[in-house]
Amino acid sequence: MSEAIQFLEPNAAILSRRREIVADLAELVPAERLVHEPVELVPFETDGFLAYRRRPLAVVLPETTAQVAAVMKYCHRYGIPVVPRGAGTSLSGGAIPQEDAVVLGLSAMTRIIDVDYANRCATVQAGVTNLSISDAVGADGFFYAPDPSSQLACTIGGNIGMNSGGAHCLKYGVTTNNLLGVKMVLVDGTVIELGGKALDAAGYDLLGLVCGSEGQLGIVTEATVRLLAKPEGARPVLFGFDSAEAAGSCVADVIGAGIVPVAIEFMDKPAIEICEAFAHAGYPLDVEALLIVEVEGSDAEMEAMLASIVEIAKRHGVKTVRESQSATEAALIWKGRKSAFGATGRIADYICMDGTVPLSQLAYVLRKTSEITDRYGLRVANVFHAGDGNMHPLILYNINDPDDAARAEAAGMEILKLCVDAGGCLTGEHGVGIEKRDLMRHQYADADLAQQMAVRAAFDPAWILNPSKVFPLEGRS
Amino acid sequence: MSEAIQFLEPNAAILSRRREIVADLAELVPAERLVHEPVELVPFETDGFLAYRRRPLAVVLPETTAQVAAVMKYCHRYGIPVVPRGAGTSLSGGAIPQEDAVVLGLSAMTRIIDVDYANRCATVQAGVTNLSISDAVGADGFFYAPDPSSQLACTIGGNIGMNSGGAHCLKYGVTTNNLLGVKMVLVDGTVIELGGKALDAAGYDLLGLVCGSEGQLGIVTEATVRLLAKPEGARPVLFGFDSAEAAGSCVADVIGAGIVPVAIEFMDKPAIEICEAFAHAGYPLDVEALLIVEVEGSDAEMEAMLASIVEIAKRHGVKTVRESQSATEAALIWKGRKSAFGATGRIADYICMDGTVPLSQLAYVLRKTSEITDRYGLRVANVFHAGDGNMHPLILYNINDPDDAARAEAAGMEILKLCVDAGGCLTGEHGVGIEKRDLMRHQYADADLAQQMAVRAAFDPAWILNPSKVFPLEGRS
Repeated sequence: MSEAIQFLEPNAAILSRRREIVADLAELVPAERLVHEPVELVPFETDGFLAYRRRPLAVVLPETTAQVAAVMKYCHRYGIPVVPRGAGTSLSGGAIPQEDAVVLGLSAMTRIIDVDYANRCATVQAGVTNLSISDAVGADGFFYAPDPSSQLACTIGGNIGMNSGGAHCLKYGVTTNNLLGVKMVLVDGTVIELGGKALDAAGYDLLGLVCGSEGQLGIVTEATVRLLAKPEGARPVLFGFDSAEAAGSCVADVIGAGIVPVAIEFMDKPAIEICEAFAHAGYPLDVEALLIVEVEGSDAEMEAMLASIVEIAKRHGVKTVRESQSATEAALIWKGRKSAFGATGRIADYICMDGTVPLSQLAYVLRKTSEITDRYGLRVANVFHAGDGNMHPLILYNINDPDDAARAEAAGMEILKLCVDAGGCLTGEHGVGIEKRDLMRHQYADADLAQQMAVRAAFDPAWILNPSKVFPLEGRS
Repeated sequence: MSEAIQFLEPNAAILSRRREIVADLAELVPAERLVHEPVELVPFETDGFLAYRRRPLAVVLPETTAQVAAVMKYCHRYGIPVVPRGAGTSLSGGAIPQEDAVVLGLSAMTRIIDVDYANRCATVQAGVTNLSISDAVGADGFFYAPDPSSQLACTIGGNIGMNSGGAHCLKYGVTTNNLLGVKMVLVDGTVIELGGKALDAAGYDLLGLVCGSEGQLGIVTEATVRLLAKPEGARPVLFGFDSAEAAGSCVADVIGAGIVPVAIEFMDKPAIEICEAFAHAGYPLDVEALLIVEVEGSDAEMEAMLASIVEIAKRHGVKTVRESQSATEAALIWKGRKSAFGATGRIADYICMDGTVPLSQLAYVLRKTSEITDRYGLRVANVFHAGDGNMHPLILYNINDPDDAARAEAAGMEILKLCVDAGGCLTGEHGVGIEKRDLMRHQYADADLAQQMAVRAAFDPAWILNPSKVFPLEGRS
């Protein structure tokens, strides 16, 4: 693939001191937690944004906050860039390193420190995977709500960096709505704590600021997250439509009526076919667009909410309404949706966009998206969190054909601009990373970006933390 | 009252230029929007934290964002402190001016700019009162959720400054959870926009940072807030207990079981008596502590949730369970609770504390609070948002007796330290203001405070915006 996205020029002085830096790092973390042989560095060269890769100087995988602090203190003293990394599932290249950087991987910090039902929260190390929190408390009837499709692999630290969402965030909110506190190592190695088990924080909401800051304000090493009680019951229902626009308008009307199901997921025909072939979820194949709507609560509550939704769907000419008849069917319906990206990867390379739009613009943006991909001669599959207006067009292409790849990237950028111009945002849950860095000027005026960079400088004036990301390389202050 | 809290020394050069500054401001806002005669300045000398007052240099009451920007540009150029003010209902002195400051009042910016049901949000000017948002959309079946007791008077701009909460925030979250976007004037007059109608923001969550920043990062002039659909029904239920500790433990067990009613409010015996005498709400007078629990939804949903709560309450020896039998009764129950502060003010002067604690500490902190006030020979009434662990001890005293006042202030500070030491926070919803400024060192280590001040400096390096507030005067950086 052609490299449309520029990286920062590596610092030659740092590169030349590589051997010495590795020796110094070996004093700070146990030997088995330092990766520096070229062949062992390969897995750390990229993340879920596969089109770009760089080999880092070294990788450290600390086990304690004290080790993280020691590494940060060292790198800060010598001006060595640090790229934090969770499970490396970022779709925007948030964890892609640079040649002169130390990758600070949190994946060895996997301890669940405390489960506190009286305060309905759990405190975990940053490398704990998203799903393992719910697994740890499931038998007691609780769960951790935000559910990225990658939840089996992705870490809570990475979720905090990207303010990750998921299908069930329509009702429960995204990471920032479920995060109560963090322990964080500042760029110079100082350890601070933000938030905690009680409501609110005195002074500024630095916890809210840190959530979604893509590893640029500090290294989160521990997190206290909210636990929720599992609902009495939950039921996904399939709504099939003859057009994507009808499905989109239906979503806007459901939400506009003030109805908030747990999830409203959207799939267009290509996505339905891909997912059905993979998961055999029982999706209808004779429709152009499908909504998976999940309701929860008692039987009576689910029936009542469903009745209101069915009434609205009928006004939009719904063709098929199919309730899951068993727990197995329900699980299959979600398996199909959650494996959409993986299933797509079996038939083609793809890039996944992550724009959000006001719900009233959903139908319009879907139509324009297909016009854009048609114009580039590319196929697109849409599968996304419709209730939140968080779109995920998957643009299919061939990663080994540079021309195809360049067109896919150009089409993706056009789609994101379309979202912004419709009153939306470049990213709903995947982050800006390196992928959308240069589009930040389309989203923001200079004064807005300058203010964001001023906040960044209040944490990391020397641009040591994840420096290639989020802000355009030109015009940095 | 003795002045335990220090103000910043006014800048003599600014004071001496008062006449000239007033003349300059007269060029920037309409004549009727500039207040400068001493007698007219009196209402702006203090806010809901009545123990302290200062007469400001002048007050401007702009009608547009452009006028706010012009005033900020002017004050920034000449280094004149600016104290933003909504309705002046702050209980922590957030809007108390200083002699060399221009008060920038938003109370004339009362326009509801846009109601957008398709995107379930409303955009309003910052001076719109909290309740008038719900009033504007109530006939269509919607409301704005956060409901401070002062909601008839307080403005959305003030709510954003303090990240205000209210009784119904247990289920719906506080201001930050219901805020989608703002237009904000930076200290130098630059206008920026944060957030909007679509999910999330690219880059840092400056919107989350601004919410609760007590007017120190910029002047919010417009806000886009989330609208919610009114529930099918709602019913407050009274639970009377023989001890405050039993009631507190019951709350912790309800929340610990994962049950989230709309509201769980707590009143101890003094609060019950004060509120009942005022509102004739039908509160039981033969109990030591009362919980007002509100459930909502369909009749079946309300019954199911109530049954679970009653079962837990029985384990804590609940003495009285009384459901409201009509809309009138329900309204009276809430009238009693929401007028608690006003009703208390009829019988004595009081200061209202605002600490939060982890729910598991509720019973312990209640017991210790009464030990503290006993030791100071003061009466206390507790009436607060128990489900959120957000305590409001009202310490009764005589404002005209300096000794009494000093003891009340000392007792209050001890109670807040108790909350912090129990794993809680100095403030749940009233803000730090000037009241709790010097306690920030009890909550935070130096590194935490330094980081907060560094963020502040990224917006306002010269400490022009509300400078006496939030951070201790000593050790500022």
